[in-house]
Amino acid sequence: MGGRVRALAIIGSTGSIGRQALEVVRALPERLQVVGLAAGNNIDLLQEQACLFRPRYVYAAPGPHVLAPLREWGLGCQWASPEEMATAPEVDIVLVATVGGAGLMPTLAALKAGKVVALANKEVLVMAGHLVMEAARQGGGEVRPVDSEHSAIWQCLWGEDASRVARLVLTASGGPFRDIPLEELERVTAQQALRHPTWRMGPKVTVDSATLLNKGLECLEARWLFDIPLERIEVVMHRESIVHSLVEFCDGSVKAQLSPPDMRLPIQLALTYPERVAGVGVPRLDLALLGALHFGPVDMSRYPCLGLALEAGRRGGTYPAVLSGADEVAVDAFLAGRIRFLDIYRLLLDVLEAHAPVGRPDLAQVVAAYEWAKARAEEWVRAQM
Amino acid sequence: MGGRVRALAIIGSTGSIGRQALEVVRALPERLQVVGLAAGNNIDLLQEQACLFRPRYVYAAPGPHVLAPLREWGLGCQWASPEEMATAPEVDIVLVATVGGAGLMPTLAALKAGKVVALANKEVLVMAGHLVMEAARQGGGEVRPVDSEHSAIWQCLWGEDASRVARLVLTASGGPFRDIPLEELERVTAQQALRHPTWRMGPKVTVDSATLLNKGLECLEARWLFDIPLERIEVVMHRESIVHSLVEFCDGSVKAQLSPPDMRLPIQLALTYPERVAGVGVPRLDLALLGALHFGPVDMSRYPCLGLALEAGRRGGTYPAVLSGADEVAVDAFLAGRIRFLDIYRLLLDVLEAHAPVGRPDLAQVVAAYEWAKARAEEWVRAQM
Repeated sequence: MGGRVRALAIIGSTGSIGRQALEVVRALPERLQVVGLAAGNNIDLLQEQACLFRPRYVYAAPGPHVLAPLREWGLGCQWASPEEMATAPEVDIVLVATVGGAGLMPTLAALKAGKVVALANKEVLVMAGHLVMEAARQGGGEVRPVDSEHSAIWQCLWGEDASRVARLVLTASGGPFRDIPLEELERVTAQQALRHPTWRMGPKVTVDSATLLNKGLECLEARWLFDIPLERIEVVMHRESIVHSLVEFCDGSVKAQLSPPDMRLPIQLALTYPERVAGVGVPRLDLALLGALHFGPVDMSRYPCLGLALEAGRRGGTYPAVLSGADEVAVDAFLAGRIRFLDIYRLLLDVLEAHAPVGRPDLAQVVAAYEWAKARAEEWVRAQM
Repeated sequence: MGGRVRALAIIGSTGSIGRQALEVVRALPERLQVVGLAAGNNIDLLQEQACLFRPRYVYAAPGPHVLAPLREWGLGCQWASPEEMATAPEVDIVLVATVGGAGLMPTLAALKAGKVVALANKEVLVMAGHLVMEAARQGGGEVRPVDSEHSAIWQCLWGEDASRVARLVLTASGGPFRDIPLEELERVTAQQALRHPTWRMGPKVTVDSATLLNKGLECLEARWLFDIPLERIEVVMHRESIVHSLVEFCDGSVKAQLSPPDMRLPIQLALTYPERVAGVGVPRLDLALLGALHFGPVDMSRYPCLGLALEAGRRGGTYPAVLSGADEVAVDAFLAGRIRFLDIYRLLLDVLEAHAPVGRPDLAQVVAAYEWAKARAEEWVRAQM
């Protein structure tokens, strides 16, 4: 695509990834142009972003507050649903930066329309990986990872023959509770869970990092993105979040991607690929100054949610969609103080055990399982009150 | 080249790299076939190798012991000089695994004949990098690195745009004397110098690792192999020899190649590229078991030879050839107990300072400077006795 300006739609522009993506766009005005911005409820920030980037399309989640103000913005923006802007003819790249199931429909629509999807939403592939990769094949679309772990693997695979991959090794920082005594986990608060030791991320992902469910979702995501069986995907603890993931090849050679923990790097790379550019100016890695990189095995008794996610992935079918739906409700309930930290695992386990799975589900079955899981999880939360 | 058997000539077959290359060949009989074996003085091992691999061509360094036995081997081998076997029409890949200046002529001859040269000899590029890369361009030959550091960088550059490289970072274990008090360096013995903490290598390279001159030569080598200015090549201490080197790109992303320290991996890759194969069975890297990777700055007061090598590289011209020649004599003299460990630096400094350099030298000038340096270094050693 050379030096051409690429037209970008951001689904989830007011979240952590969306905001950092707009920093990247500001650093690369000659390469990236915002054509669409879709948000949830943060209308004020959406308006500010629209003012600055002048997209043709905007969207916010339905509500009484929405339609009236748009006319008053005076920016000439047009209302368009996420699916509409994701498939608009002038759009080259769709950054799907929502959290949870909300990213699924825009992703499928964009891929079927042959767009590049820069995918920051883990649940899309977790829930419906087989449908997403099929949509990309059929429509000629392309999925590029934005998660730091998957971006690392992607970079390590450039110029390599994917059939020679022996293992993918995803690194995990261990989140905010990696060092506290196990018996104290029962009492940790939402505020504590949101203090991630190495990454600046949204609340859902940060809580998922504390349970390490996050890493399980990433394994399931990697399985589809790189077409590698789950048995050949491993997790290793790595406190510093400098080595973002590794690929081991059949000859024993291992490649790793490193950088200071800064999501703007993988975001930028997904938008400028196949070119690397200085762009947003991620800080330089100084290994000599850093001194050491630590690695260790995962303590599965500290992180039972990881085992649960991997088991859901092994069973396949609608189980991963159920895991996604139940986790969204569980994390919201924990953040709202309605359930305790260890209840997240109990809730997920109970909902997964109650599920009657469907093998190789179609889209309707995936969505039905996801919605069923949310409703069931809501019931579970209410039963605790 | 797909599944075709590649015909291999090994220049330096009885040394450490040569012997490990033959282990690789034994593991990959359907891919690699030995056509030529050239050795120095180790006739017994050469005969054993010839017996096992049945090459068409053999060679040993001139001497009265050589020609008579060949007829008695009864293997139908033909005598051919390194240059002859490196350019024989049936040869696909020439592994140059000699030490010091001896590798230069076969390398140039092979590249001019359009061969792939798997280059394990550092001095070839250090002495005459501009002539070697020019020979490759003219003859359609290709240089593939065998040094673990350069192989790491090579692997990290696959699928990347070389113009987007910000820095190359070479790792150094620090050799056997990395932890001993500086004042004891005056008294260390050859036997101590040969006990490398992480790598199994030949004596010349092992002593060069103890002075870290080795790493200086590798920086000069990298400069030519990857066409990167010396100012953008750095060295970082890394005790474990697991991260073999790193590449930093303009966007701040860093790629690294890791594996247990085993030279058979880079040797194999140079012979099977662009394919990776299980082959010789290098042990698997287990980061969780390893626990930590350490990095630190280079203490230039401990390793003054590194500074000397980089300065020779910056000055260019015939200085690197002089450094190579002088170091060969210095290391031999140290191993023979004729000079002390710290004399290596003093000798190199004196010979480099006495040199009247030639800028952009031709081959004759490179060889003349190299021979001058060896003679001058010999004088220096004799003056110490």
